Amino acid sequence: MTEKPLILVTNDDGINAPGIRTLISVMKTLGDVVVVAPDSPQSGMGHAITLDSTLYAERVDFGDDTIKEYSCSGTPADCVKLAIRELLPKKPDLCVSGINHGSNSSINVIYSGTMSAALEAGIEGIPAIGFSLLNYKWQANFEACKSFVKNISENVLKHGLPNGIVLNVNIPDIIESEIKGIKVCRQARANWVEEFDKRVNPQGKEYYWLSGKFVNLDEGDDTDEWALENNYVSLVPIQFDLTAHRLINDLKNWNLK
Amino acid sequence: MTEKPLILVTNDDGINAPGIRTLISVMKTLGDVVVVAPDSPQSGMGHAITLDSTLYAERVDFGDDTIKEYSCSGTPADCVKLAIRELLPKKPDLCVSGINHGSNSSINVIYSGTMSAALEAGIEGIPAIGFSLLNYKWQANFEACKSFVKNISENVLKHGLPNGIVLNVNIPDIIESEIKGIKVCRQARANWVEEFDKRVNPQGKEYYWLSGKFVNLDEGDDTDEWALENNYVSLVPIQFDLTAHRLINDLKNWNLK
Repeated sequence: MTEKPLILVTNDDGINAPGIRTLISVMKTLGDVVVVAPDSPQSGMGHAITLDSTLYAERVDFGDDTIKEYSCSGTPADCVKLAIRELLPKKPDLCVSGINHGSNSSINVIYSGTMSAALEAGIEGIPAIGFSLLNYKWQANFEACKSFVKNISENVLKHGLPNGIVLNVNIPDIIESEIKGIKVCRQARANWVEEFDKRVNPQGKEYYWLSGKFVNLDEGDDTDEWALENNYVSLVPIQFDLTAHRLINDLKNWNLK
Repeated sequence: MTEKPLILVTNDDGINAPGIRTLISVMKTLGDVVVVAPDSPQSGMGHAITLDSTLYAERVDFGDDTIKEYSCSGTPADCVKLAIRELLPKKPDLCVSGINHGSNSSINVIYSGTMSAALEAGIEGIPAIGFSLLNYKWQANFEACKSFVKNISENVLKHGLPNGIVLNVNIPDIIESEIKGIKVCRQARANWVEEFDKRVNPQGKEYYWLSGKFVNLDEGDDTDEWALENNYVSLVPIQFDLTAHRLINDLKNWNLK
């Protein structure tokens, strides 16, 4: 009998979030699950790591004694580092992060705590996937995610992933029967146009709230934004070698000393 | 007479750091300078943004009335967003971030607040460069950086940068006469092998300190790590389209639903 795969589950919305609870329920059907997730929401943390402060990791119990769960005081990237070096019995076969409450498509990937956890696992040579649902609400309905999460995870367990690659999966917020399937795509060239709401505090000092609207100027039909708008699950393979290789030769023509 | 370029200067070590003071002194020779930088050190913040909290930006005075400086309560990425939308009179011609106290070569780029500020400017279509010196100390000597910072910035002001590209520049911590020049390179495949120092607090609770050692397994002589070890300034063009384009076709052969 072959051993069941060891699966590390994490997220950035915190260990209590409905999204990670759904992810855990699916992963239980695929292998042995260990959860190491932040004790509080960490959205928008990007790839932050805790350098100047202590980290705590406490065993917590959600009523299922087949699963070990740790609530960690750090960021998503911290959780993965701590899991791999200290908390897991061996290197996991898969790391899944999410299911995020809200989109991590297109440029959102670089602000994303969910994806930073997946990237961190990828850096460690562990096949990794970040999952996100396009609904920011705590009480979002994750039912439709389950079969896609399971299908993609099974594929990664079967095929593995090349070194340096992790998967960024986004799921539209519609009922399962309306989802047309999974589409492999590229990251759209889209971004946020920020607006700052300037206010004055009771002491007379000015301050700002960050807000903004998302603008997609990429008209390709091979992008994650296109897929999501057309009721597909988007799957983008991403890499943490950020080198723009095609530019290297051009820059050699500059007048650099 | 042509107008002088408008240059936005930021960093992640905080507005008081010697590294940004050096960067400002060089930029003054190239254009009109506005500084918007964090009020406190933000190292290891990755691409964090402030979503759930207020942002402050206060005018501060370092004794040079030709330069406007703002101390901001946010992250490096916040500083750039706030500068562009609220504080600058027009879109800047160049954004420079740093000079970071410590390396942002190879995989460090994805943990780097310095580089996240440069990426944020790049996303906004502003030519941007992150500079780092390979010395973590507050009292590092930035003298040798000056001519290279100036030369690379002049090149970017002259040539611009393609959409979607920013530059990651690292400078070895040696005297200027020993630096052999600037080398355009790729990001090395190197990473941190973390070690956690497990301790017990006075209340009997276990906690961890993150530490680790840097391991470079990439033997190429075209990498940033090679350049730095061989006394060159490394210049890596990086991109925020993380798509691993070469993988897209392979994944289409998976059994995805």
